[in-house]
Amino acid sequence: MPVDLAELTAEIAAAMAGAEDRGQVARYIPELAGVDPAQFGIAIATADGRMFAAGDADTGFSIQSISKVFALTLALGKVGDQLWERVGREPSGNAFNSIVQLEQEHGIPRNPFINAGAIVVSDVNLGGHQPRVAIGEILRFVHYLTGDDSIAIDEAVAASEGATGYRNIALANYMRAFGNVRHSPELVLGLYVHQCAIEMSCRQLALAGRYLMLDGRHPDGGRVVSPGRARRINALMLTCGHYDASGDFAFRVGIPGKSGVGGGILAIVPGRASIAVWSPGLTEAGNSRLGGQALEILARRTGWSIFSPPEEGD
Amino acid sequence: MPVDLAELTAEIAAAMAGAEDRGQVARYIPELAGVDPAQFGIAIATADGRMFAAGDADTGFSIQSISKVFALTLALGKVGDQLWERVGREPSGNAFNSIVQLEQEHGIPRNPFINAGAIVVSDVNLGGHQPRVAIGEILRFVHYLTGDDSIAIDEAVAASEGATGYRNIALANYMRAFGNVRHSPELVLGLYVHQCAIEMSCRQLALAGRYLMLDGRHPDGGRVVSPGRARRINALMLTCGHYDASGDFAFRVGIPGKSGVGGGILAIVPGRASIAVWSPGLTEAGNSRLGGQALEILARRTGWSIFSPPEEGD
Amino acid sequence: MPVDLAELTAEIAAAMAGAEDRGQVARYIPELAGVDPAQFGIAIATADGRMFAAGDADTGFSIQSISKVFALTLALGKVGDQLWERVGREPSGNAFNSIVQLEQEHGIPRNPFINAGAIVVSDVNLGGHQPRVAIGEILRFVHYLTGDDSIAIDEAVAASEGATGYRNIALANYMRAFGNVRHSPELVLGLYVHQCAIEMSCRQLALAGRYLMLDGRHPDGGRVVSPGRARRINALMLTCGHYDASGDFAFRVGIPGKSGVGGGILAIVPGRASIAVWSPGLTEAGNSRLGGQALEILARRTGWSIFSPPEEGD
Amino acid sequence: MPVDLAELTAEIAAAMAGAEDRGQVARYIPELAGVDPAQFGIAIATADGRMFAAGDADTGFSIQSISKVFALTLALGKVGDQLWERVGREPSGNAFNSIVQLEQEHGIPRNPFINAGAIVVSDVNLGGHQPRVAIGEILRFVHYLTGDDSIAIDEAVAASEGATGYRNIALANYMRAFGNVRHSPELVLGLYVHQCAIEMSCRQLALAGRYLMLDGRHPDGGRVVSPGRARRINALMLTCGHYDASGDFAFRVGIPGKSGVGGGILAIVPGRASIAVWSPGLTEAGNSRLGGQALEILARRTGWSIFSPPEEGD
Repeated sequence: MPVDLAELTAEIAAAMAGAEDRGQVARYIPELAGVDPAQFGIAIATADGRMFAAGDADTGFSIQSISKVFALTLALGKVGDQLWERVGREPSGNAFNSIVQLEQEHGIPRNPFINAGAIVVSDVNLGGHQPRVAIGEILRFVHYLTGDDSIAIDEAVAASEGATGYRNIALANYMRAFGNVRHSPELVLGLYVHQCAIEMSCRQLALAGRYLMLDGRHPDGGRVVSPGRARRINALMLTCGHYDASGDFAFRVGIPGKSGVGGGILAIVPGRASIAVWSPGLTEAGNSRLGGQALEILARRTGWSIFSPPEEGD
Repeated sequence: MPVDLAELTAEIAAAMAGAEDRGQVARYIPELAGVDPAQFGIAIATADGRMFAAGDADTGFSIQSISKVFALTLALGKVGDQLWERVGREPSGNAFNSIVQLEQEHGIPRNPFINAGAIVVSDVNLGGHQPRVAIGEILRFVHYLTGDDSIAIDEAVAASEGATGYRNIALANYMRAFGNVRHSPELVLGLYVHQCAIEMSCRQLALAGRYLMLDGRHPDGGRVVSPGRARRINALMLTCGHYDASGDFAFRVGIPGKSGVGGGILAIVPGRASIAVWSPGLTEAGNSRLGGQALEILARRTGWSIFSPPEEGD
Repeated sequence: MPVDLAELTAEIAAAMAGAEDRGQVARYIPELAGVDPAQFGIAIATADGRMFAAGDADTGFSIQSISKVFALTLALGKVGDQLWERVGREPSGNAFNSIVQLEQEHGIPRNPFINAGAIVVSDVNLGGHQPRVAIGEILRFVHYLTGDDSIAIDEAVAASEGATGYRNIALANYMRAFGNVRHSPELVLGLYVHQCAIEMSCRQLALAGRYLMLDGRHPDGGRVVSPGRARRINALMLTCGHYDASGDFAFRVGIPGKSGVGGGILAIVPGRASIAVWSPGLTEAGNSRLGGQALEILARRTGWSIFSPPEEGD
Repeated sequence: MPVDLAELTAEIAAAMAGAEDRGQVARYIPELAGVDPAQFGIAIATADGRMFAAGDADTGFSIQSISKVFALTLALGKVGDQLWERVGREPSGNAFNSIVQLEQEHGIPRNPFINAGAIVVSDVNLGGHQPRVAIGEILRFVHYLTGDDSIAIDEAVAASEGATGYRNIALANYMRAFGNVRHSPELVLGLYVHQCAIEMSCRQLALAGRYLMLDGRHPDGGRVVSPGRARRINALMLTCGHYDASGDFAFRVGIPGKSGVGGGILAIVPGRASIAVWSPGLTEAGNSRLGGQALEILARRTGWSIFSPPEEGD
């Protein structure tokens, strides 16, 4: 019997409203540190065009690392599989290793979803232009995916990230020393911090992810990426989308997902649903605590884990 | 239009017979070094009970690390989720890190499919008994899964592994120092090398994997593991099943799989197929070169990647 | 004005008797864990043949890693500078790195004073014989250096070390995998643990170290090693003799020294003194806390730091 | 019989003039890459005020990392032993580890002679001023030590270093993220690259090092640093002065020394000599190949190794 998604999202939002251990809000910039941890939102865009939302599904939040999915999609459109000469496709082990391996592996980051890899993707997306040109391109892409031109960058977040992001400056310069960042690190990071500072709601984010559930097609019928590319981006989200807790997320939830330190997670069930959850409190690994719990419940109730036999008729 | 699997397996076997770059056969023990690299086999057991096989599908080979899937299943049956206090669920980064992280993470291996993790699983499976008791249990489990009591251990392989496996002795003693190996390292490794030396054909291996495509059920109707456990074992195979090329396998093939240095790969398409391929030549990362290529073709032609929308009616 | 060493050793022993923070006694085997931390001994053998001792200078203790100095001397006598193809001469960074670097550097330990390096030295000293033959040789060497045939091995310590030394078994097997341990790891470690279990008093240890202050000569006039070799062993003691606190010991004390977890330190002032101190409580880095403090006072009072201009007439 | 230093320096210079394997000149900036590798110079300032020089002893070269000795001396004058809360005193293991350890050890570099440590020292020396003020201070200190006001910075070298030093920018920002660099990384590195670009001849460098052989005194009778501080700087030079070949230098030469990629080495024999050698070709570890050989010969012929008994009357 198919699950009633309206009921289920409401039920999950209610359960999360009462959760006690909500994790710690990110503290490294004041704009994130000040977000109220009591919030939770969920939105599900289904393959047949319906939308189910509950909780704070219309409140905007900083998508942060979730932007790496859209930036990767754009960069693959620019340079195709040549990107993989500059970025790997393997889980990173952990944060600590990402630096070691950068040295061991001559400035080639392990995957496009750790910071080092996303900085190389930004270097590709910059493409000789000024940061604002490349930022404009990313925003237009998100507008196209969602059909919502109101989505914008939170400039205060971008400014704070830029002012305190010493590790990212270190990473960019380190890769520049290996020739794997080709533009000025300052310009590349200008693009990077603005892309991370895009503000979206769960509803908007679920809309933006639809092409990944639809084998690369836009719901309007246009093709965003080839089926193979959509499939491979989903694979990267599963193996690398939750930092050093990616294996655990695959184990518990079983759905490709990408998290951000703003507390959002975008999760893709191929052929079925594009899901966004948001709650600002984080686990130690830096992923939304309630967001992960909500997706675990959702996967169990719907049978949407990609590691189970597909259910009929849901 | 559904793919004709009889035609497809024959076609893949023919293509692989003519492949030029077959990789390097494992050389660390004479029993593996002497295997003829010109061989290739494929067998597919489908959810509806059919079997498709081609090439050297009935030739026995050493399953090696593929045995870790069956050993993990048994250990979870013994101690349940307590196992995860002693073994992690994250990809390991790489071989090099697996040692570093063992020290950093106080003797807790990253996952049950790297050698260190599989040795802890063997420690659990030993359970205070003599190695031959625990080996007998694993063999009986494989007999039950396949319905084939002729499957046996290649004692020459086990003896060679035992005589030269200094790294495994090092790992076992290292974890013993942290208290995460509890029996004598010698006994634990006795079990470990015998389990790795099980000899099976592609056809037998595809039969053995059916419970993982059937949500944990045996084709005879009995339950081997719960649906959730089957799903989670599949997730571990996807994120950790190909050593430090697991991300790449997910990216290119998109199907949970576990490889062994004997050249075999077991791959599971939930709800559809349990697949075994075998060809002895390996990539640098230690996975079957032609086996990986065959699965990539198979996934593309069938649409079986778990990262694509499920196809209808195949 | 020359320092009165009789007064100074008495003064230091008195100061140390009243010390409050004595560090933690090694706990990994009961024979060490049970030693009374309230003890302190000091003995100085001078180049002109005098001996000054105070405190518990005649109480025997387990020399542990200090034995690596004598074992290295013997191994250099057997294979000369070929030893340096199998062991490096650089400080190790830290314990953690000693494992990483063993993998990175293909089983070649950084220096002969970390455990991995000392195990290779034992492999050389074993030389195809049974452990007891090689142990006998080391004991005879110590008897010759001290003129005291009563020095013996504490068999209870050796047995305990052998029964619990899983990390050393791991290291030996790991290097065996690289071919840098050539005998059976079991036999090599048999030699290693017995050598570490030699029991000596401060007085005996100071006598044993005299050849290193005397440019390689025995006080009886015979030559133990060449002047160049004595000098180079002293250099290794300075750069590598205190594990990951070697730099700090050089900085504070400025005298080549080798410590052991039994709480002893052998320190060599070329041309002037062979010094042994002992107090069982250890720093976090595993070196005798009061022993280090005593040597710091001694160096300051005598001007014996090798980094100062040599004083006249002391 | 005392060695005739005039003869010995001439003899060494002649031997080095004919050396075939001179190593590779540093290539990372054009100003260093263009230096003629056929050059070799040596200068010895003795404690009794004599100077012996031979070869290209009056040719200026970029002192590079040798400047870290003078910068450390100044920083200790400013903040005293508080410096050691921000920089360690242990050898670094190797280049690779210096990054790992920076993360492991929360942004505290292992010692003041690796780049990361020297950048912290520059942060201290900057002391809230503009780089040119702090640079002026270092230059004045060198003028005072040598009595030679003509010593200056090679601005072309400083400019090239600044334009290509992405790794140093990475290190500075990385430590800034931990709060262990407190000024703007750009200003700190401005000071750092200028200090490294000081140009001196062997004769000038030997003069500059005299305070370290004279227990902290200037030859004019003034005190530069306390005896204890001079001793401890010498100890750091011995344990950390030649990057990851410090142990080997101690082993072969046995004299505290600090090398630079310009091909210079400053070596200190306490109470006897301040020595400068220079030859631009480097070993793989980044130290002057002929410079090291020259010092090895010098130490053997003079008996100046600090690990040998002091010779009488030389």
